[in-house]
Amino acid sequence: MTRRKIALAGIGKIATDQHIPTLASSPDWELAAAVSRHGRVEGVPNFTDMDEMLAAHPEVGTVSLCMPPVPRFAYAEAALKAGRNVMLEKPPGATLSEVHALENLAREAGVVLYATWHSREAAFVAPAAAWLKGRRLKRFTVTWKEDVRKWHPGQDWVFEPGGMGVFDPGINALSIVTAILPDPIHVTRATLEMPENRQTPIAATLAFHHPQGAEVTATMDWDHSGDDVWRIEAVTDGGTMTLDRGGAEMRIDGSVQSAGDGLHGEYPRLYAQMARLVEDGRSDVDLSPARHVWDAMTLGRRKIVAPFHW
Amino acid sequence: MTRRKIALAGIGKIATDQHIPTLASSPDWELAAAVSRHGRVEGVPNFTDMDEMLAAHPEVGTVSLCMPPVPRFAYAEAALKAGRNVMLEKPPGATLSEVHALENLAREAGVVLYATWHSREAAFVAPAAAWLKGRRLKRFTVTWKEDVRKWHPGQDWVFEPGGMGVFDPGINALSIVTAILPDPIHVTRATLEMPENRQTPIAATLAFHHPQGAEVTATMDWDHSGDDVWRIEAVTDGGTMTLDRGGAEMRIDGSVQSAGDGLHGEYPRLYAQMARLVEDGRSDVDLSPARHVWDAMTLGRRKIVAPFHW
Repeated sequence: MTRRKIALAGIGKIATDQHIPTLASSPDWELAAAVSRHGRVEGVPNFTDMDEMLAAHPEVGTVSLCMPPVPRFAYAEAALKAGRNVMLEKPPGATLSEVHALENLAREAGVVLYATWHSREAAFVAPAAAWLKGRRLKRFTVTWKEDVRKWHPGQDWVFEPGGMGVFDPGINALSIVTAILPDPIHVTRATLEMPENRQTPIAATLAFHHPQGAEVTATMDWDHSGDDVWRIEAVTDGGTMTLDRGGAEMRIDGSVQSAGDGLHGEYPRLYAQMARLVEDGRSDVDLSPARHVWDAMTLGRRKIVAPFHW
Repeated sequence: MTRRKIALAGIGKIATDQHIPTLASSPDWELAAAVSRHGRVEGVPNFTDMDEMLAAHPEVGTVSLCMPPVPRFAYAEAALKAGRNVMLEKPPGATLSEVHALENLAREAGVVLYATWHSREAAFVAPAAAWLKGRRLKRFTVTWKEDVRKWHPGQDWVFEPGGMGVFDPGINALSIVTAILPDPIHVTRATLEMPENRQTPIAATLAFHHPQGAEVTATMDWDHSGDDVWRIEAVTDGGTMTLDRGGAEMRIDGSVQSAGDGLHGEYPRLYAQMARLVEDGRSDVDLSPARHVWDAMTLGRRKIVAPFHW
């Protein structure tokens, strides 16, 4: 089968770490162009302007967007208006309304919009969802701690409005939570620790309403030293499940589970899914992980903490 | 026609100023019970506990909720689970996800949920929408200024998380904006002035993306002395329209317009609409005004300003 031509826009850390190597070995996609103000991809035509790339490459039917959420809207709008399918890094936008606007544009243009959640593609997310189904939840605890200096060195945009702060990694947790919990939850209380020189939280604690009264909480910290902690623990009437390393590891009552076969790697699975969506002409925009972040940003009690410096 | 029995919950300022007098002269509704921790309504059974009222008054098919948004969810949940129709003061909830939860409960129970926006019932909102339709918008300016000490004297909840601050009145403006603008807009930039001793903004400026490139902005101030300013101005290729006094007055190129006949008064119109919705078994939950507030709370740049004291 001929591979579909795709362009990558926003050539920064996540593009270099994940998107470019994934596309290089993809059976579905051929990287045909790149758009970036600063970055470049070797071996393909590079552009600094999205409209120029769209005009020069009518054969590129799909554009994958990797830049931060605030500037991303304009690129997505341009690509959709030019009739191209669009794949969005997480989070799908800076606000709910702008994602609704993109959904409308995609519908009008008759193209596919895919809001990706890479953490949902971790090996044990589907097994965790299957295990939780039918069990009665008592306690559900999310612990997400990493060092922003390690994962986003010098990237000031994460602390600017719309950059989401600790919710940049925290939304990965929430994308798993919303994929594995059988019942809908909503934030009822949040504390946001705001460095006095920054606009987004560096740490947060969330409490959720659960329809059957389970105690659902999340603790997120971006100023954490030592190993990353990406853990979800579910205590049920039928045992305790722990997802660790962001869904790459699962234990049931302490016993390590083994993953099934199939395509491994979060980004290879995202691009395989995008190929299926384009084949079927079907969009996939699930906003539930972002909704919890936006709710926490709206409802959270802000506590000013020490300034953050790189 | 027999009037339907309704209960009112949350007997505070807005209930006393608007809901009780409106229900007293409503052709559709008979106030049959009240629920409030502190307030009372003369001449009907009063309860402090929602579940007790629901159990004692199975003939009350509809409950109207007037308490602040954060505590409101629990009351709405109880009423919906007990199979009663629910009418919500604005804003419909503290977060997007909790309103989605209420929508699901209403659907499951087969009852009506109505998220009211009283400012949309002002006399000139529908004429303004009709006038704007088909004209090309160039500039659209919202100015919403009032004194919180006059409208919410001593009500600390407005400055607590979920209380919305200046967006408590500002959402009235946004409920009109979203009713009269033919095209969807979304917040792209917001500045929030946060009193250093409070959790919600006392002033805000918003800039919106408009699909045809019109300049759309809003200025909101809750620390305003002098007359209230509740104004929306639309400059188009076919003249300038000004809505004033929150939609009670309209001018086209300076000439004052006169209102048509029909039911006047925002709250009488809300209760007439609730009667129609119950008659038809139809819910009405439009979240677009709240979405812009939640977007601004998420994306806004916070600027610490002088402490606020009553």
